[in-house]
Amino acid sequence: MTDSPSSALNEMDGIERPEITNSNSINHIKNLRRKVITAEELVTGILNHDKVALSRAITLVESTNVNHLDKANEVIQACMPYANKSIRIGITGVPGVGKSTFIEAFGNYLTTLGKKVAVLAIDPSSSISGGSILGDKTRMEDLVKNPNAYIRPSASGESLGGVSRKTRESIILCEACGFDTIIIETVGVGQSETAVHSMVDFFLLLNLAGAGDELQGIKRGIMEMADAIVINKADDENIKRARIAKVDVQRALHLFPEKSSGWNPTVSLCSAIENTGMKELWEMIDNYYQLTIQNGYFEQNRKNQTIHWMLETINEQLKNQFYNNAEIQLELINQKKKITANIISPFKAAQILLEMYLK
Amino acid sequence: MTDSPSSALNEMDGIERPEITNSNSINHIKNLRRKVITAEELVTGILNHDKVALSRAITLVESTNVNHLDKANEVIQACMPYANKSIRIGITGVPGVGKSTFIEAFGNYLTTLGKKVAVLAIDPSSSISGGSILGDKTRMEDLVKNPNAYIRPSASGESLGGVSRKTRESIILCEACGFDTIIIETVGVGQSETAVHSMVDFFLLLNLAGAGDELQGIKRGIMEMADAIVINKADDENIKRARIAKVDVQRALHLFPEKSSGWNPTVSLCSAIENTGMKELWEMIDNYYQLTIQNGYFEQNRKNQTIHWMLETINEQLKNQFYNNAEIQLELINQKKKITANIISPFKAAQILLEMYLK
Repeated sequence: MTDSPSSALNEMDGIERPEITNSNSINHIKNLRRKVITAEELVTGILNHDKVALSRAITLVESTNVNHLDKANEVIQACMPYANKSIRIGITGVPGVGKSTFIEAFGNYLTTLGKKVAVLAIDPSSSISGGSILGDKTRMEDLVKNPNAYIRPSASGESLGGVSRKTRESIILCEACGFDTIIIETVGVGQSETAVHSMVDFFLLLNLAGAGDELQGIKRGIMEMADAIVINKADDENIKRARIAKVDVQRALHLFPEKSSGWNPTVSLCSAIENTGMKELWEMIDNYYQLTIQNGYFEQNRKNQTIHWMLETINEQLKNQFYNNAEIQLELINQKKKITANIISPFKAAQILLEMYLK
Repeated sequence: MTDSPSSALNEMDGIERPEITNSNSINHIKNLRRKVITAEELVTGILNHDKVALSRAITLVESTNVNHLDKANEVIQACMPYANKSIRIGITGVPGVGKSTFIEAFGNYLTTLGKKVAVLAIDPSSSISGGSILGDKTRMEDLVKNPNAYIRPSASGESLGGVSRKTRESIILCEACGFDTIIIETVGVGQSETAVHSMVDFFLLLNLAGAGDELQGIKRGIMEMADAIVINKADDENIKRARIAKVDVQRALHLFPEKSSGWNPTVSLCSAIENTGMKELWEMIDNYYQLTIQNGYFEQNRKNQTIHWMLETINEQLKNQFYNNAEIQLELINQKKKITANIISPFKAAQILLEMYLK
């Protein structure tokens, strides 16, 4: 490691110091907080399975400071050869379905199998800053203390695309840090599911049995994306309703076209509170893994996702550059007024804006 | 009208001559074919409800020649104040459901009510050139001869966005030409439904009763977009199955969240061949119109659609300019190879491409 830089350099670095989710070395943390870490040091830390270095690297990747981009890319780049050896599981469900409790139960179960579990949460609606990980800690109290687990919410960016990009890069960092089971959590209320679906190997929809809401997931095509639907809170007096819901969901699944993975989506029951259904769920995910490794879908899907993410990043950036242009922003307001008053066509307005931009 | 220009000027004009769908003045057509028509002349023709001028204006709008863009915008611009007085109906359904026969029956019925009906078809999969309207003619033989109807397939562009844009502009031209009922037809197999949904007031899904395919529309979220589901071919021995299908579809519709229009989607039966169900369908669309005019949704939705189209056009153009760049195209191939081999991250690859582009 290099010597401590001057405080001026330290400020120039400008990286927010990482939130520490799990560490037993206060001094080590203090040292990290006081110095600028080079990309090489971060990479060394990550490859040595150091969660503090991982957290710090994710903070770097999440930084909106453009000066951090090169350093972030350097870290990602060095981690690439060590990533990709994992299963990536997306988990969604409407608020109240018990995602946190479920992930805690499932994550803890996986660590008993010797898995190393990283949980990344995308929540485009919440603004996550310094203190938010404490909020997260209270949500998954046990898992956060588990030495074989790592929990990290994605910092909210200005756009969903931004958040997704950062999550996608964080997956690479977690994998290089030795985590072999990556769980991406997202709330089931927006378009974030599509983004998550495009970065995972397996997509799981968490549902509840209840009055008329067995098919919550059907909206926004979430159900169509699911490789498994798990009905949570199948406990106590709920168990009967959950079984009925299972049959309903199974029937509904038949309406969807066959998946190109060759996998038939499954429906299962669980109780995160009573810790039931975890073993069955993991076996099922493992069956999926075996099937898609054998038929080549797993590998091909990851390649497609990678290309998708490159194109998405380009498209996102092209738009950002346009809509962040101050002159364009003013003229956009002007043109919107004109087109809603039917004074000019939306295409003419677009042409005016594009010509202004290209000058 | 101006005098006939020289043949050189005529060639410079470069606009394909319109296909004539309906006209009883051969000389008039011959005159039109021989001369370059100015934007003013096209507008005058359109506002005088001249279908030949309308066809020619649509051809201008569909032209991929960038030199036509200004003239096209001028025509659209002049027509804007006369557009917008209509109901725009989107119709989709999988191939074989009988869309053409249905539109012919429905369109002819509407003209008996004094409506003027324009049918625009979007089919991103077919390449429509000069002669294609003849193909369309054979599909809707009666309607095409109906003086109060106009049928026009959308020329296929290089992208769906392009097709949609042209269709959106063609709607404006048709409305300025006095058509008060605009039907946009699309095949129910791609993403064109979403594009059509975003340019119409009312979205209709045509289904068939049959073995297990009552819910064809459920895939791709098409069913969720529908304001009405019409089960076609409810005739002869099919009638019983059609009634069962109706109940099934009605049940399935309850699973979707309420629409922001305040409208509850309906399910009805029809037989395009036996000409039944048309009156009921039109009454239902009229109910929708009354409801959404009263609650303000109709107007607000059109405003939102207009802004949507401006933004879509901008985003489409930003991408076109990037991906049509020859240097970028070469480097894209190179970067794709690298990222699928896990040599660099998709984000780094995107950055390299964007930096190359901005230079």
